Amino acid sequence: MSTATCLALSGGVGGAKLALGLSQILPADELAICVNIGDDFEHFGLTICPDIDTLIYTLSGLANPETGWGRVGDGTQFMETLKCLGAESWFHLGDGDLAMHVTRTQRLRSNEPLSNITADISTHLGIKAHVLPASDDHVRTIVETTLGDLPLQQYFVQKKCAPEVTGFHYMGADNAQANPDVLSILSAQTLRAVVICPSNPYISIDPILAIPALRQALINCSVPVIAVSPIVGGNALKGPTAKMMCELGIRVSALAIAEHYGGLIDGFVLDPADEALAPAIADLGISPHIAPAVMGSLRDKTLLAQACLNFARSLH
Amino acid sequence: MSTATCLALSGGVGGAKLALGLSQILPADELAICVNIGDDFEHFGLTICPDIDTLIYTLSGLANPETGWGRVGDGTQFMETLKCLGAESWFHLGDGDLAMHVTRTQRLRSNEPLSNITADISTHLGIKAHVLPASDDHVRTIVETTLGDLPLQQYFVQKKCAPEVTGFHYMGADNAQANPDVLSILSAQTLRAVVICPSNPYISIDPILAIPALRQALINCSVPVIAVSPIVGGNALKGPTAKMMCELGIRVSALAIAEHYGGLIDGFVLDPADEALAPAIADLGISPHIAPAVMGSLRDKTLLAQACLNFARSLH
Repeated sequence: MSTATCLALSGGVGGAKLALGLSQILPADELAICVNIGDDFEHFGLTICPDIDTLIYTLSGLANPETGWGRVGDGTQFMETLKCLGAESWFHLGDGDLAMHVTRTQRLRSNEPLSNITADISTHLGIKAHVLPASDDHVRTIVETTLGDLPLQQYFVQKKCAPEVTGFHYMGADNAQANPDVLSILSAQTLRAVVICPSNPYISIDPILAIPALRQALINCSVPVIAVSPIVGGNALKGPTAKMMCELGIRVSALAIAEHYGGLIDGFVLDPADEALAPAIADLGISPHIAPAVMGSLRDKTLLAQACLNFARSLH
Repeated sequence: MSTATCLALSGGVGGAKLALGLSQILPADELAICVNIGDDFEHFGLTICPDIDTLIYTLSGLANPETGWGRVGDGTQFMETLKCLGAESWFHLGDGDLAMHVTRTQRLRSNEPLSNITADISTHLGIKAHVLPASDDHVRTIVETTLGDLPLQQYFVQKKCAPEVTGFHYMGADNAQANPDVLSILSAQTLRAVVICPSNPYISIDPILAIPALRQALINCSVPVIAVSPIVGGNALKGPTAKMMCELGIRVSALAIAEHYGGLIDGFVLDPADEALAPAIADLGISPHIAPAVMGSLRDKTLLAQACLNFARSLH
């Protein structure tokens, strides 16, 4: 673990794209990814960790490129049968994907830490990067809405992000122990850069930062911390980030994201579409850096990853 | 439930064949099947009820005709992924089949009785017969072998019935409450016959009979109780019955099965191949009846079912 030169903080789909880019250019073992666990939940008695799974599927080449989540070519017999049996079917679980949830749940029940299980599954799927859940404890993102508090997956999948958001909290974060591997990477001499991936700040990155020891370790760490904007040209690259910002009365702008991470980051990567915001970001005491932030192809991901590493090196 | 005119006692594959035959000739609602729960077990944190499932799949036309268990055309992506993840894979779970285990386990965890869940699943799959687990409590068949005690599925699936059997016991049976619907059927005026299906007596029927109130109700019931021999011509129709009998020092013969059920049954159905045993069975005080007991086709199953009902009626 002490071999990691880059620690990425990531949620699901958007973050996994940059993590994949980083995995293409960093030598095996030099990339560690601290993954959001705030959207983990229990469904049918199974513990489902959507962001860990998306990251694992993306890094192992098993991800479904059309959805960004789930496994490519995965079957639907489980879901079809569930419906025949009259069971809840709002959360899709693919036939192969289920093996992940079933085996992980069984191991969690025998008190194996999530971090161990994640490492073992990663190894079995040939992943060289260290995939590190932010904590082995429970942290659960609760979306505060005008309809009341909703656990993240209910808001996100069951209600399709329709309820109006008024805030967020992260159940369990205050008392969660940070993953000790993440803490040791953050204090190790080998580390060169921390990259906050272009994930949703409220539901993907903040649940990680809400773990007190992890946030403190990030503040204390001596290497450049940079974030990549999930907002390009005043719109979210993916998901409900822009809608949430609107509802929270925050202007949908890369600048607002930089402000959100103020005090934690040294540099901020924004798309050429947002070049005009660079001076305002510099005014926040954060170094701006322009790089194409829309990651369609693997080449886009790799180029952005390289830009991030070069930028971080320049801030040393 | 009080509409049942026939109560069948059944294990998995062999019993399900006769139950299917009975379901073809009895009017909807007149057939109730009391199913073995002794081979239920926990696997990956899921409660798996192999005999209930085989019966449900058989009665709903979903059974895999080649294996006798599992669903026809069921996928294997779950099992293939499990193997990739390095998880145990000795017990096969099909992709669609998993929906049964996952939804049942979730409902059991919320304290819904197995009998309710089974009834609801049966209804969803269009089954008219009453499928009744012998108990809502746990009864677990333990196979005593020269290698020590083995839970049934470990003996049956993992060890492929190889260990030498010295006996059986039925954990939990002494304190298990009988399914009240089975008890009420056994004491109802509408009942006309009890049929012990040609299942393995030691691992399919005895775990049912080991539940004290159920055994007593069977002894007390006023209608003819008949059993169908799972041994034809000195061999088991299916599974390890003959091997078990050998190892227990019991002669592999339909007569030994009739003796095994002595005191409980009024009539015994044996195949024409075993016609010579009829006088010896009559000597036990049990009426013998000859009928083709090998059930290849649906017609075979229906004919045997009709023979059983006619025979029981003749014993009134």
